[in-house]
Amino acid sequence: MMGNNMPLKVNGQRLWDSLIAMAEMGESRPALSAEDFAARALFADWCHQAGMSLDADAIGNLYARRAGRDKGASPVVMGSHLDTRPGGSRFDGSYGVLAALEVVRSLNDADITTSRPLEIAVWINQAGERFAPAMLGSATFCGDVPLLQALTTEDGRGTSVATALSGHGGDLPLERPFAAYFEAHIEQGPVLEQAGLPIGIVTGGQAICWLDVEVNGSTAHAGTTPMALRQDALLGASAMIGQLEKLAAEYQPHGLVTVGQLLITAAARNIIPGQVRFTVDLRHPQDVQISTMEQQTRQVLQQVAAQRGLDVSIRRHWSSIATPFDSGCIAAVRQAVAALAYPHQDMVSGAGHDAMNLARHCPSTMIFIPCRNSPAQHQAEYATLDDVRMGADVLLGAVLLQANN
Amino acid sequence: MMGNNMPLKVNGQRLWDSLIAMAEMGESRPALSAEDFAARALFADWCHQAGMSLDADAIGNLYARRAGRDKGASPVVMGSHLDTRPGGSRFDGSYGVLAALEVVRSLNDADITTSRPLEIAVWINQAGERFAPAMLGSATFCGDVPLLQALTTEDGRGTSVATALSGHGGDLPLERPFAAYFEAHIEQGPVLEQAGLPIGIVTGGQAICWLDVEVNGSTAHAGTTPMALRQDALLGASAMIGQLEKLAAEYQPHGLVTVGQLLITAAARNIIPGQVRFTVDLRHPQDVQISTMEQQTRQVLQQVAAQRGLDVSIRRHWSSIATPFDSGCIAAVRQAVAALAYPHQDMVSGAGHDAMNLARHCPSTMIFIPCRNSPAQHQAEYATLDDVRMGADVLLGAVLLQANN
Repeated sequence: MMGNNMPLKVNGQRLWDSLIAMAEMGESRPALSAEDFAARALFADWCHQAGMSLDADAIGNLYARRAGRDKGASPVVMGSHLDTRPGGSRFDGSYGVLAALEVVRSLNDADITTSRPLEIAVWINQAGERFAPAMLGSATFCGDVPLLQALTTEDGRGTSVATALSGHGGDLPLERPFAAYFEAHIEQGPVLEQAGLPIGIVTGGQAICWLDVEVNGSTAHAGTTPMALRQDALLGASAMIGQLEKLAAEYQPHGLVTVGQLLITAAARNIIPGQVRFTVDLRHPQDVQISTMEQQTRQVLQQVAAQRGLDVSIRRHWSSIATPFDSGCIAAVRQAVAALAYPHQDMVSGAGHDAMNLARHCPSTMIFIPCRNSPAQHQAEYATLDDVRMGADVLLGAVLLQANN
Repeated sequence: MMGNNMPLKVNGQRLWDSLIAMAEMGESRPALSAEDFAARALFADWCHQAGMSLDADAIGNLYARRAGRDKGASPVVMGSHLDTRPGGSRFDGSYGVLAALEVVRSLNDADITTSRPLEIAVWINQAGERFAPAMLGSATFCGDVPLLQALTTEDGRGTSVATALSGHGGDLPLERPFAAYFEAHIEQGPVLEQAGLPIGIVTGGQAICWLDVEVNGSTAHAGTTPMALRQDALLGASAMIGQLEKLAAEYQPHGLVTVGQLLITAAARNIIPGQVRFTVDLRHPQDVQISTMEQQTRQVLQQVAAQRGLDVSIRRHWSSIATPFDSGCIAAVRQAVAALAYPHQDMVSGAGHDAMNLARHCPSTMIFIPCRNSPAQHQAEYATLDDVRMGADVLLGAVLLQANN
């Protein structure tokens, strides 16, 4: 018999096998497609086999429920999504759903009943490739998007969410109270892989500020215009980008600065660029820092423009404040990680996840595991059996703590 | 009676009036279009009124001839073009043709017969917008493009030069010997305007080297990838362009470096650029310098790539050696300018002109006058009555020197 100090662990091989079986439903699973519904049906079968009851809400989010001892208590919820981006992934979303299922299976194996009920939530349309915006299911559940608006949202072919749901919606009310929400997810970034760590304790989502920059100089012929008489908008933009790289260095290790798009107006090989437009993507875990970053970005761009006799206009395209996760949920994750003695580090989530919506509704947090290959590379994301096992162990430990207090 | 030291001058107002009348034939005159033929017809009328004979060669270049005292001598030729780019110009090309006509009219007024015959050449298809390449008429005359190839060149609608000529060709042989060739032209750059000088003594055409650069890093998500783990191809390209600007500074006042096109592959606002391609346009009046510039450009780009863990590939797209003009023709221009006491400076031609083709056939040079607004701005190029008058005075003086020795 194991000592009391030995934490309960999941069956890593069973979780792995479930991930592989789920991937066979089609690695590309657009929201509410035949592949998505096949994935949901497989998940429902497994939940029934694990003794769970299933129901859906009006927007089609699926909830599998395991009863607790306290029948009236609000549930501790684990969840993620089963739809995937084009190109697909065996781990994006399905890892959070199936790690939750493995938590339930492991509790069944150990014959443990928690005080609070447990639920596994499958949020619809997280990827956002079929219906905009991304994370529509969790946003509708949390009341950020009105139900009618969500149901009448159409895909590129004019099919509405309501039509695509075709009877897969249910009666569970939106905005039900949750005691807590935990989402396990592949990191979809290089941090844990580079650090050689299996667990990321996610303290929140970043603040984001998107700027549109337009630099105006003078178009002129490359052969007839001496360097001293030029107002080259691209030389200006290049100098600005160099300054932004220096600015990013002042906000390490957390600040991120990216110029992802740059366009020269009426570009030609032998014409000096007279107008350049580029985007700036600023990110930082703290709102006060993103605000300073934006201010300094504007100063730096104005300075370079002034030095070079160029005009610059800077417009804020979009911004989003930081999403700090719940300190109680984070503490539960820390305690679980400590009991397991798994190497780990704190981090923020760079990508958008349903947990950012849930964090405005109930105490929430996330657990990251390493992920090889970033999604933008359109290569298969990959996690190892050890990665998925250890992350589920942490999820199990944290959920047990929250469901028994 | 004027003193011997007073140089002959043209009638500036007459030249100006001719330029305005010619512009009324249509400021946009595609090569061999109805507008172009109307311009040629007007020019032919004026030449006949000035006592000149007209003929054409097989590619449709038009030559107006004024007899000299030495019947067997090869002619001193002045010329330019009457076709214009879309958007047009009252001065591009037509200035060189009509300044030449004004030289003849002024010699008629002064009852001066030169030793050598004088000719005015109107080269077809200089602009190159209808038929490629630009400067097709002078290139065919000089033997750089075979006649059959030139005649079968088609425009975008499949109409050949032969069809478009529709009987406007003639029997004058190609590659006839010329004693000298002088082309007066608006500068199409800002140098003379900025310097406040009326005359540019053109010593030659620049050497040009066009490079294609491809920078490869790693695409990744802007939100999930810390700065230290990025291989951002755009940050690399921006640093490279900054270095190219410094390199240009080492080749002043004559070196020119332009990055006119830059493309991020699969660009998105929240994706770190993994691949950037850009062009480099290097120019210098001296071949040995352009060679060093190219070598140093390659070194600088490789250095930046190595410092940043990026790959760079550099391919030479096209290059053209310098076209030095004839020292005798330049000396004649200098002597004429000195006699007129017109402020002036030496310069190279940054744009392509028929004189670059002629320079491989016979002693040649050009005379520039100031030009407001560069062609790339698609604004009306403008020269003043004083500008056009003084340039024609210089042309007259230089041609008299060459035609009487």
